[in-house]
Amino acid sequence: MTFSLKNKDPKSEARVGLLATKSGEIETPVFMPVCTKGTPKGLSTNNLKDLGFDMVVANAYHLFLKPGHVNVKDYGGLHSFMDWDRSILTDSGGFQVYSLSPSAKISDDGVSFKSFLDGSVNFISPELSIEIQEYLGSDIMMIFDDCPKPDSDYSRVLESINRTKEWANRSKKARKSDSKLFGIVQGGIYEDLRKTSLDHMLEIDFDGYAIGGLGLGEGQDKTYNITEQVCTMLPKDKPRYSMGIGKPEDIINSVERGVDIFDCVVPTRNARNGTLYTKDGKINIKNSTYNMSDKLIDDDPNHPCFGYSIGYIRHLYTSKEISALSLMTMNNLYFYKQLIESIKKSIKDGKFIDFKRNFLERYQNESN
Amino acid sequence: MTFSLKNKDPKSEARVGLLATKSGEIETPVFMPVCTKGTPKGLSTNNLKDLGFDMVVANAYHLFLKPGHVNVKDYGGLHSFMDWDRSILTDSGGFQVYSLSPSAKISDDGVSFKSFLDGSVNFISPELSIEIQEYLGSDIMMIFDDCPKPDSDYSRVLESINRTKEWANRSKKARKSDSKLFGIVQGGIYEDLRKTSLDHMLEIDFDGYAIGGLGLGEGQDKTYNITEQVCTMLPKDKPRYSMGIGKPEDIINSVERGVDIFDCVVPTRNARNGTLYTKDGKINIKNSTYNMSDKLIDDDPNHPCFGYSIGYIRHLYTSKEISALSLMTMNNLYFYKQLIESIKKSIKDGKFIDFKRNFLERYQNESN
Repeated sequence: MTFSLKNKDPKSEARVGLLATKSGEIETPVFMPVCTKGTPKGLSTNNLKDLGFDMVVANAYHLFLKPGHVNVKDYGGLHSFMDWDRSILTDSGGFQVYSLSPSAKISDDGVSFKSFLDGSVNFISPELSIEIQEYLGSDIMMIFDDCPKPDSDYSRVLESINRTKEWANRSKKARKSDSKLFGIVQGGIYEDLRKTSLDHMLEIDFDGYAIGGLGLGEGQDKTYNITEQVCTMLPKDKPRYSMGIGKPEDIINSVERGVDIFDCVVPTRNARNGTLYTKDGKINIKNSTYNMSDKLIDDDPNHPCFGYSIGYIRHLYTSKEISALSLMTMNNLYFYKQLIESIKKSIKDGKFIDFKRNFLERYQNESN
Repeated sequence: MTFSLKNKDPKSEARVGLLATKSGEIETPVFMPVCTKGTPKGLSTNNLKDLGFDMVVANAYHLFLKPGHVNVKDYGGLHSFMDWDRSILTDSGGFQVYSLSPSAKISDDGVSFKSFLDGSVNFISPELSIEIQEYLGSDIMMIFDDCPKPDSDYSRVLESINRTKEWANRSKKARKSDSKLFGIVQGGIYEDLRKTSLDHMLEIDFDGYAIGGLGLGEGQDKTYNITEQVCTMLPKDKPRYSMGIGKPEDIINSVERGVDIFDCVVPTRNARNGTLYTKDGKINIKNSTYNMSDKLIDDDPNHPCFGYSIGYIRHLYTSKEISALSLMTMNNLYFYKQLIESIKKSIKDGKFIDFKRNFLERYQNESN
């Protein structure tokens, strides 16, 4: 079995599971730090090991363009290249070809687009996306999907779910390795299209299912409603992945609805933008309130930034020191790891709803 | 005693000593990573602890301008601010007021200069420099010196050593704490002026003596000759500090002539410019030879970057990832720490000259 359920919260759909990949076993819910180009931004993969992460997400689109998936294969695969022996999930590039190449041209064959690096014209088909992901040595691959903009109209989204169905079939057929393959449920904000797309994916049958196209500006209520709708109809014995989700409150609300796997740039990108995540809410380090503040970034001696104060981090950040970015990224990823650990414990204890209330009450108190 | 000699190499002036500050004991020769603004560039003070460094150098000029020495004092001092309980040597700012403020105006009172941060006009006297360093809580302070450009003519250098003598006297008088205070021998490339400046410093009497104005383009031969000349005349029972020195070969040649303390931006700055220091010489990571190279950055399992290849680091560097800068800085500072450890061991074993020959033969083989 790829996935087995261990615990289920009595008052919600929150669950703890065990996901097995060729690189190891991962307890879910799990948060994957984003290693788009083969490293977390601001830290090293060694730091991620120290922080206790079991799985990261890397990106087929970026690594195809640089250093090239054939080069990575010749090197011995992405695990070896990154010196990371734990699990790697790879995104197929479906989302990036649009979001990073505004002039991308889509056809039933695939997508042609200009490289965001050098403007060279490239073409990715479902078959090539799987080849890229297999050459990288991915533990969990994603199907190549048609991911329209969040504000697309009904007809465009309808087209996208039908194309995603075809591409999902071709992705599955193209697989030559024993890497796991996840389907992606699209359908935008349209309930009936989400249902149809989900039926398509279940019909093809995958090792796990992702919810795509969320967190792109549709609003929190819609995110949660779609998550709930899709999770309700997904089989209980397969892992569920909410792509690109999310903020701490989004992760908690998605776990409550039955999601197992998460990834998001928020902890790392916001660190570089000056935001520290703490149990008492977010801190904008640029705020002059924190000038020379001797309040510790965290009073837990096990915290990887223990000993550093908010005023010191602010000094480093406003002095444009690299160490500010690394320490803030470390803090934010540690915060996410602790959040996930607390979520898992609360589910095992049958107290997830209590945890949710207590956490959000403190986190959303005032600073947020 | 502030300083005691432990071992002396039989065939050179190289020596191992023990330097005591209020923060701890330091075995010399010692290399101090540069923490100009209160952090090493590219890493955190925690990383320096992990790397085993005992002392860092911070800068009175930079910390006076931002966040302000009064602020640091109110905070509880620089050790507390940086979360660094080991020793801190502070430079007096004498060098920086010139090198960073081209329009600096010097008088016998002190130096007025425009802040490199915001253009505001500031004034530093010997008395203020000592106040700044004492407010920071420095373990070893430097006198405020007049440090003319390396290509200055004889009369300007003569003026500078006389002014430095006055300022050295005023610096010593201004000291209110039990922090150690080091004199600085100036004199440029002029042997007689070096001798006069040295006599000035010995007459005033300090806890240790620095050689200033070296490594500023005078050429390696002159650096070594001046170092030898000054060291020969310095008392054996006081520590000697070669300011801003240097490259690995410069450190070795200076140790050979009797220098105990070093600091230099080379390992950290060159890391950010793409240079890796290895036992086989320097590597320019931007060189396409290293594209996808699977050669490990170091095959020592204790190396802090063990597992990462030169090709991977090159990928991160050319992808402008912060982790490239941190890992390369880590590598270079580890290289410097290992160099110093090997130097100390070779002196204790009475084999410094053998070590020097073997190290330089390998290091300067071809890549350099």
